[in-house]
Amino acid sequence: MGLLAAGIAAGLAAIGAAIGVGMLVSKTVESIARQPEARGVLSTTMFIGIGLTEAIPIMAIVIAFILTGS
Amino acid sequence: MGLLAAGIAAGLAAIGAAIGVGMLVSKTVESIARQPEARGVLSTTMFIGIGLTEAIPIMAIVIAFILTGS
Amino acid sequence: MGLLAAGIAAGLAAIGAAIGVGMLVSKTVESIARQPEARGVLSTTMFIGIGLTEAIPIMAIVIAFILTGS
Amino acid sequence: MGLLAAGIAAGLAAIGAAIGVGMLVSKTVESIARQPEARGVLSTTMFIGIGLTEAIPIMAIVIAFILTGS
Amino acid sequence: MGLLAAGIAAGLAAIGAAIGVGMLVSKTVESIARQPEARGVLSTTMFIGIGLTEAIPIMAIVIAFILTGS
Amino acid sequence: MGLLAAGIAAGLAAIGAAIGVGMLVSKTVESIARQPEARGVLSTTMFIGIGLTEAIPIMAIVIAFILTGS
Amino acid sequence: MGLLAAGIAAGLAAIGAAIGVGMLVSKTVESIARQPEARGVLSTTMFIGIGLTEAIPIMAIVIAFILTGS
Amino acid sequence: MGLLAAGIAAGLAAIGAAIGVGMLVSKTVESIARQPEARGVLSTTMFIGIGLTEAIPIMAIVIAFILTGS
Amino acid sequence: MGLLAAGIAAGLAAIGAAIGVGMLVSKTVESIARQPEARGVLSTTMFIGIGLTEAIPIMAIVIAFILTGS
Amino acid sequence: MGLLAAGIAAGLAAIGAAIGVGMLVSKTVESIARQPEARGVLSTTMFIGIGLTEAIPIMAIVIAFILTGS
Amino acid sequence: MGLLAAGIAAGLAAIGAAIGVGMLVSKTVESIARQPEARGVLSTTMFIGIGLTEAIPIMAIVIAFILTGS
Amino acid sequence: MGLLAAGIAAGLAAIGAAIGVGMLVSKTVESIARQPEARGVLSTTMFIGIGLTEAIPIMAIVIAFILTGS
Amino acid sequence: MGLLAAGIAAGLAAIGAAIGVGMLVSKTVESIARQPEARGVLSTTMFIGIGLTEAIPIMAIVIAFILTGS
Amino acid sequence: MGLLAAGIAAGLAAIGAAIGVGMLVSKTVESIARQPEARGVLSTTMFIGIGLTEAIPIMAIVIAFILTGS
Repeated sequence: MGLLAAGIAAGLAAIGAAIGVGMLVSKTVESIARQPEARGVLSTTMFIGIGLTEAIPIMAIVIAFILTGS
Repeated sequence: MGLLAAGIAAGLAAIGAAIGVGMLVSKTVESIARQPEARGVLSTTMFIGIGLTEAIPIMAIVIAFILTGS
Repeated sequence: MGLLAAGIAAGLAAIGAAIGVGMLVSKTVESIARQPEARGVLSTTMFIGIGLTEAIPIMAIVIAFILTGS
Repeated sequence: MGLLAAGIAAGLAAIGAAIGVGMLVSKTVESIARQPEARGVLSTTMFIGIGLTEAIPIMAIVIAFILTGS
Repeated sequence: MGLLAAGIAAGLAAIGAAIGVGMLVSKTVESIARQPEARGVLSTTMFIGIGLTEAIPIMAIVIAFILTGS
Repeated sequence: MGLLAAGIAAGLAAIGAAIGVGMLVSKTVESIARQPEARGVLSTTMFIGIGLTEAIPIMAIVIAFILTGS
Repeated sequence: MGLLAAGIAAGLAAIGAAIGVGMLVSKTVESIARQPEARGVLSTTMFIGIGLTEAIPIMAIVIAFILTGS
Repeated sequence: MGLLAAGIAAGLAAIGAAIGVGMLVSKTVESIARQPEARGVLSTTMFIGIGLTEAIPIMAIVIAFILTGS
Repeated sequence: MGLLAAGIAAGLAAIGAAIGVGMLVSKTVESIARQPEARGVLSTTMFIGIGLTEAIPIMAIVIAFILTGS
Repeated sequence: MGLLAAGIAAGLAAIGAAIGVGMLVSKTVESIARQPEARGVLSTTMFIGIGLTEAIPIMAIVIAFILTGS
Repeated sequence: MGLLAAGIAAGLAAIGAAIGVGMLVSKTVESIARQPEARGVLSTTMFIGIGLTEAIPIMAIVIAFILTGS
Repeated sequence: MGLLAAGIAAGLAAIGAAIGVGMLVSKTVESIARQPEARGVLSTTMFIGIGLTEAIPIMAIVIAFILTGS
Repeated sequence: MGLLAAGIAAGLAAIGAAIGVGMLVSKTVESIARQPEARGVLSTTMFIGIGLTEAIPIMAIVIAFILTGS
Repeated sequence: MGLLAAGIAAGLAAIGAAIGVGMLVSKTVESIARQPEARGVLSTTMFIGIGLTEAIPIMAIVIAFILTGS
């Protein structure tokens, strides 16, 4: 049962992180194309956002690793 | 049964947090690109929002850790 | 059975709270970018809204903690 | 079986309440940003609306507490 | 089986009522912001609407209470 | 089995009625805000509409009561 | 098994009828607000539409009553 | 098993018919409000459309009645 | 098992046909309201379209009748 | 098990075909209303499209017939 | 189990092919109505597209036939 | 179990390929109708795109064939 | 159980890859039709994007092949 | 059970990664077509985004490989 749980957790985390980051980066690319001079601050905000977006999925991945070992 | 519950809780929390934060940061990036001078207050609001958005998912992650140990 | 219930309750609460708060803060960021001088009242309304949005999910988290102990 | 029911009821109530209140407060924030002078009446309407929105989910939380004790 | 039914009924009623009332109040807030002088009649219509919106979910809550006792 | 059926019927009826009436009243509020002088006929149409919208969910509630007694 | 079927049929019929009629009446209210002089013909069309919309759900309710008795 | 099938068939038919007819009549009401002089031909087309829309759901209701008797 | 299959087939066919025909007739009504002089050719196209739309659902209904007899 | 498969295949084929053809014919009706003189070529394209749209669902119906006989 | 698989494969293939081809032909009809003189090249592209769209569903139908015989 | 897996894989591959190719070709048809002189390069890009779109579904079909033989 | 897993993995990978590549190529075709002179750089970006889009689904296909052999 | 989990994890990761990267690259292609001179910075941002988007799905793939070996 723990192995099935690991698969579900890893899969759901992958969907969430990929869609969230994809949504975030595509908006940033669009904004840079509209205002190339604001590239620095937009990139900085993007990196912080990506870091915080992936925080919870990475914890879910950690839980999945724990479950595969249990 | 507790292991399966941990997987479900961690996976759902990861989806929720990733989509919520991604939605929030992408709007912030768009707003900064439109008004670069309001960067300070927008970033501050964004950090508070991210903190409060991730409060409940982190609790769910905590519950998932408890469930993996039970 | 109580452990599975705890996982479901915590996971659903995390999705609901994250999406609700993300939606709320992103609208606030957009509004501040449009009218920076109304920053005070918008922030106040946002904090009250976040508090009330997270009231029910936190109760669900409490129920999840009770279920993990039962 | 009662414990599983408590988890389902609490989780669904949390999603409903969080999305409903988030939708309501975000519209209020947007309206205040458009007409800051109507702040009083909008806030009053918002508080009444939040109270009535959370009435049914709180009952569902009460039922969930009853079910955890049964 | 009756306890599980109570949880499902209460949870679904909470989602329905919260989303319905949230949708209704947010439209009212938007309309008052557009025409503050029509505040009286809009509020009256809103209260009647909320009362009628929550009629069926409250019956579902009553059924849920009956099911928890059976 | 009858108790589970009662819960499903009551919950689905509550969702349907709440969303339907909420949609209907919110459109009425929007229309009154646009034309306050047509308040009478709009309210009348709204009351007839609410009555007919809730006819079928009330029958479903009646069936749910019958099922709780069976 | 017949009781469960009655609950499913009644619940689905309630959702269908409530959403259908709500959609129909809200469009009628919007149209009357735009052209108050065409009130007569619009109401007549609305009543015919409601009657025909609720024809099939009422049959489903009848089947649900038959199933509760079987 | 036949009774469960009757409930599913009747419920799905009720949803389909109610949404289809509601969609159709609401468009007709909107079109009459835009061109009141074309009322005759629009009503005729609407009645034919309703008749043909409800043809298949009525057959499904007939099948549901047969299944309740089997 | 054949009876359950009959219910599923009839219900799905009813949803498909009702939504398809409703979508088709509502577009036709809208087009006639925009160009009343093209009424003939639009009606002809509509009838052919309805006939072809309902061809597959009617076959599914036939299969459902066969399954009720098996 | 073959009978259940027949029901699923027939039902899914009916939904797909009805929605596909309805979407196709409704666009054709709209295009003819915009350019009545291009009626011939549009009808021809529509008939070819309907024939090719219904090719796969008819094969699925054939499979359903085979499964009812197995 | 092979028979159930045949039904699922055939049904899903029918939905996919019907929606894909319907979407493709309806766009073509709309484009021809906008530029009747480009009829030749649009039809050619459409036929190639339909052929390639139906390639995979036909393979799925072949698999379904194999599964009915196994 | 291998036969059921073959059916699921083939059906899902058929839906994915049909919707992807249909979406791709319909955009190409729309673009050619807007700029007929760019027909060559658009067709070339389309063929490459179709080939790459169908690469993974064809592998899924191959897996389905392997599973029918296992 | 491994065979069923292979079917699920292959099917989901096929849907994901087909929709992702189709979305990507259709945007490229639209962009080339708007600016034919930027054909080179757009094609290059498209090929890199397709390669990276299909990286994960191909790994899923590899896992599916491993599972068919296990 | 571990094999089934591997299939689910790999399949969900493939969907998430393919849709996320496809969404991201298609926005980049659109932005380059609008501003070809900003090609360098847009490509750089895109590559970073793709790398971060695929980080979590690749971990899910790793978990899937571990699960196939367990």
